[in-house]
Amino acid sequence: MDREMFIEKGIIKFGDFTLTSGKKSNYYIDIKEACTYPETLSEICDELAKKTIYNTVAGMELGAVPLIVGVSLKTNKPYIIIRKEEREHGTKKRVIGNIIVGNKVDLIEDVVTTGNSLLKTAVVLRNSGAIVDHALCVVDRENGGSELLKENGIKLESVKKVSELL
Amino acid sequence: MDREMFIEKGIIKFGDFTLTSGKKSNYYIDIKEACTYPETLSEICDELAKKTIYNTVAGMELGAVPLIVGVSLKTNKPYIIIRKEEREHGTKKRVIGNIIVGNKVDLIEDVVTTGNSLLKTAVVLRNSGAIVDHALCVVDRENGGSELLKENGIKLESVKKVSELL
Repeated sequence: MDREMFIEKGIIKFGDFTLTSGKKSNYYIDIKEACTYPETLSEICDELAKKTIYNTVAGMELGAVPLIVGVSLKTNKPYIIIRKEEREHGTKKRVIGNIIVGNKVDLIEDVVTTGNSLLKTAVVLRNSGAIVDHALCVVDRENGGSELLKENGIKLESVKKVSELL
Repeated sequence: MDREMFIEKGIIKFGDFTLTSGKKSNYYIDIKEACTYPETLSEICDELAKKTIYNTVAGMELGAVPLIVGVSLKTNKPYIIIRKEEREHGTKKRVIGNIIVGNKVDLIEDVVTTGNSLLKTAVVLRNSGAIVDHALCVVDRENGGSELLKENGIKLESVKKVSELL
């Protein structure tokens, strides 16, 4: 997928945006919305699928779920979904899917900024016995994520770095 | 998909179970876990895809999302995801995807028991301008769901009724 495709599919939009953090930005990345069109989701999942190296894909609800499901269907690899936080019902499991202790999994995320969110997902997976040293994202916003993950033993690959889109 | 397939794939399990409601049950339906295996997800989505009649699929996070995404990829129809409830961030939209006012959507759910959850999803979609009169689920637990939905103008179809599985 080239830069023009990211613009055409509305994955990145240019204009004046106020992010949820309150910061102003002259671009906005919205993979969740763009992926509700199956052609776009399918193309993105093809790119991610090519970068998977292990036999299971994993990620955090909700943004990563369509990507995880699409990659799982395309590669025939099972998936693991981590729920965002402990729910009010203590009986609900945090992990959906089968973690085999000692198995390596490919971590998937839509957008990586600081890497904090992806690292949290990795910690839940590691605490459940999975080995996590490889992560994939659609867009790396290049805001320290790659470095933070590297410090924690995880190599991050992206379909596109934001610097390639601006 | 026949009854044996539902048992073989672990979609329905028999034994002594305590449900989250506290009630005892001699069977347990877990579509979320079973669908983390792509062969199972793919087969279920094929069955649901055959029953879609409109050009958009929709449903509530999180259980329905793999089904919605799978059906969307198989039918090339866009999808809409409704978030479970208003989040702490008021800026976050409840609806992911493009609701076209006056457009009909196929509502998708994994398991329907009383139908309350599916009706809530329908109300959010209707309040956003979609027309909802058709719903699909994998298992209808036959606990009033079909009747409640019918009273509210929605026809429920299922891949299997629980009475066909017991």
